[in-house]
Amino acid sequence: MIKIYKFPQRTQWREYFSRPVFNENSTSEKINEVFNSVDKYGDEGVKKIALEFDEYKSDSLKVPLESIRNSSELVDLDVKNAIKLAQGNIQKFHESQISKTQVVETQKGVQCWRETRPINNVGLYIPGGSAPLFSTLLMLAIPAKIAGVRNIFVSTPPNKQGGVDPEILYVAKLLGINEIFSIGGIQAIAAFALGTETIPSVDKIFGPGNQFVTSAKAYAQKKGVAIDMLAGPSELFVVADNTANPQFIAADLISQAEHGADSQVILASDSEMLLRKVNDICIDLIKTLPREKIAKKSLSKSRLVLMSSIEDCIELSNFYAPEHLIIACHNARTLRSQISNAGSVFLGNFSCESAGDYASGTNHALPTGGTAVAESGISVESFQKKISFQTVSKEGLKNLGPSIKAMANAEGLQGHALAVDIRLDNKS
Amino acid sequence: MIKIYKFPQRTQWREYFSRPVFNENSTSEKINEVFNSVDKYGDEGVKKIALEFDEYKSDSLKVPLESIRNSSELVDLDVKNAIKLAQGNIQKFHESQISKTQVVETQKGVQCWRETRPINNVGLYIPGGSAPLFSTLLMLAIPAKIAGVRNIFVSTPPNKQGGVDPEILYVAKLLGINEIFSIGGIQAIAAFALGTETIPSVDKIFGPGNQFVTSAKAYAQKKGVAIDMLAGPSELFVVADNTANPQFIAADLISQAEHGADSQVILASDSEMLLRKVNDICIDLIKTLPREKIAKKSLSKSRLVLMSSIEDCIELSNFYAPEHLIIACHNARTLRSQISNAGSVFLGNFSCESAGDYASGTNHALPTGGTAVAESGISVESFQKKISFQTVSKEGLKNLGPSIKAMANAEGLQGHALAVDIRLDNKS
Repeated sequence: MIKIYKFPQRTQWREYFSRPVFNENSTSEKINEVFNSVDKYGDEGVKKIALEFDEYKSDSLKVPLESIRNSSELVDLDVKNAIKLAQGNIQKFHESQISKTQVVETQKGVQCWRETRPINNVGLYIPGGSAPLFSTLLMLAIPAKIAGVRNIFVSTPPNKQGGVDPEILYVAKLLGINEIFSIGGIQAIAAFALGTETIPSVDKIFGPGNQFVTSAKAYAQKKGVAIDMLAGPSELFVVADNTANPQFIAADLISQAEHGADSQVILASDSEMLLRKVNDICIDLIKTLPREKIAKKSLSKSRLVLMSSIEDCIELSNFYAPEHLIIACHNARTLRSQISNAGSVFLGNFSCESAGDYASGTNHALPTGGTAVAESGISVESFQKKISFQTVSKEGLKNLGPSIKAMANAEGLQGHALAVDIRLDNKS
Repeated sequence: MIKIYKFPQRTQWREYFSRPVFNENSTSEKINEVFNSVDKYGDEGVKKIALEFDEYKSDSLKVPLESIRNSSELVDLDVKNAIKLAQGNIQKFHESQISKTQVVETQKGVQCWRETRPINNVGLYIPGGSAPLFSTLLMLAIPAKIAGVRNIFVSTPPNKQGGVDPEILYVAKLLGINEIFSIGGIQAIAAFALGTETIPSVDKIFGPGNQFVTSAKAYAQKKGVAIDMLAGPSELFVVADNTANPQFIAADLISQAEHGADSQVILASDSEMLLRKVNDICIDLIKTLPREKIAKKSLSKSRLVLMSSIEDCIELSNFYAPEHLIIACHNARTLRSQISNAGSVFLGNFSCESAGDYASGTNHALPTGGTAVAESGISVESFQKKISFQTVSKEGLKNLGPSIKAMANAEGLQGHALAVDIRLDNKS
């Protein structure tokens, strides 16, 4: 079922393991239209677009506070308990990301340091679609809270009943978030970027979404609003040796494949036997899935790769720079130093990706599309900036002065030298 | 000379203190053309564009290693000493930015942590123009080295003699950088993004430049290459009370103004007397500058602002989110907690901006155009990514399992629950 590649050469990697390219032009006209409409007509523009494109008539864009307060009654007890356990772990892990200020005296009289400040206003986009992705709200809002963000706004597409699912409202309630807008798609991003009567403009927009949402975020970024990342289809790369359990791996592959028909799944191994076993198990397991059709579509484009060594498998993974990487090898911990490009790595047979998707504590908002070569997943730092500070005493300026002046003059910026001279010449 | 605003109301801030908007459409055609040419013709494309647009005929794009080696002889001793002092301070400050791995056991059997990895290949663009900005090479290459970047490539426009200024080569030599390309403008960014026979494609592009360079970086970003930031004109905001020395402030304003005719300079104070004095001193000082014309043009668009209190001045600064902020107030250190948006802050009378531009140790590559509301300046972290890792033991998965399954089922992702069950049901 899944295509097997045997010993692909380095020169073939780009061809064999490239991602599907998304044609941006297909969305740009619609995005322009929506941004213009929201810019011009505010709330009315948002409503008009929702009706036209998403066939959703909305009287009020903001979820009433009462709905958030009452959400608890509408969520199953086991789901509430699950959310609380996940919340605790995510909280614990992300609290370790708070950085301390460290003052450095670079030379006598010169002190330099950085202080973190929260981003004041953030907008979190939580996709809807087939199911309420309340786990994404946990993954974005918990680090935002830890960072100290003052104003957290949430936008999520209305469900078929025109409301917001109680699980999302329940998570918002747990985290003390009161401002939720039932708006989806491009219009949600446009509203966060431009602001309307009801929806405030924000400093940074977070959250995944379909190609329209992603293109809208790119557009917002061009207009000067910060964004977390441009998220593409989800990806899993597995490196497994012959000690791996093929059942576990098959389950991981299809759990990734069920995300969407465009999900990317690759398994690399030095054992052809393992590849064949995983393939066979996948065929059986997939039939048990409610989302069988989606997973099948995704798996049909997936790849099993036979390499001559586990080191080669990891090299291929570094080339691909996957969002998720499972290392199902006997020496998984030792191998991790060889990993240079990945979003989140799961070491060992019992570290399944779904642990990190929901409850282990790590963040599931991760770089996709190969951007892991240069970007990291969401963390507390994504909701902060670092401001550098310095104090230079008169003595400090005496020490730095000759250096500043020589460099400024060599760069043809004599005014910069003057700012030093005027201070050192001052007799008062 | 400089326009004075008295007690501007909050509602007027957007109008009075907005930055000039750059019309992107004016560059997009040229950028498309250059990227296409470099994509199609590689090195020859780069050379053709250099000849056509920049009237520069180039036989070889790469600076010979010998030129780097011999650069020391061509640089003045005081400049070399100045560079070494700056290098030491920048190194010392940026070394404090190395983060340690911290393993968190979120619950029994579940360990989560993040490890930093350097970005493998980076391209540093060092603008040329009127003078060789070798200080920018220090500011980018030192944190890159500390981060552990394997391949550092530099591109800089050729000077009038068709070569690269010895100061830039000398800094490269000091830092052990061997790959320098004498290419400027859009074609340099296109080459870093796409790669040619001579210039390798990189994972992330750094460095300031004019509007063409900045737009080219935005274009490269859209094509999937990471960039540091979109740098606009340089900015200085000064908050000063009546204890400030008007001479020092005037020198700071004109040292900022000499950067370019589009530089932004704002002084806010609760003392009208101070504003008038600074204005008068600026008129005198500016005449002594070699770059008088440029500084005059920039100052003519600058603003002196009278506010009713220093707290209001800082609030205005937070609204503006300046690249550089000088706090020339008697209680500068105490006031810093009120600062929420800025790139780099200089506290006290002797902390002139040019100290941070060159030698104190802080980075001078900073967020402009108001992006300081959400972005930070360049640091060691800009040259790294953080990969999250986790190990979950069988016991750990037992603890997480019910939570993962309840959440996965509620989100309609039964395959995710299966990956847990298949592991916990396993008897081997």
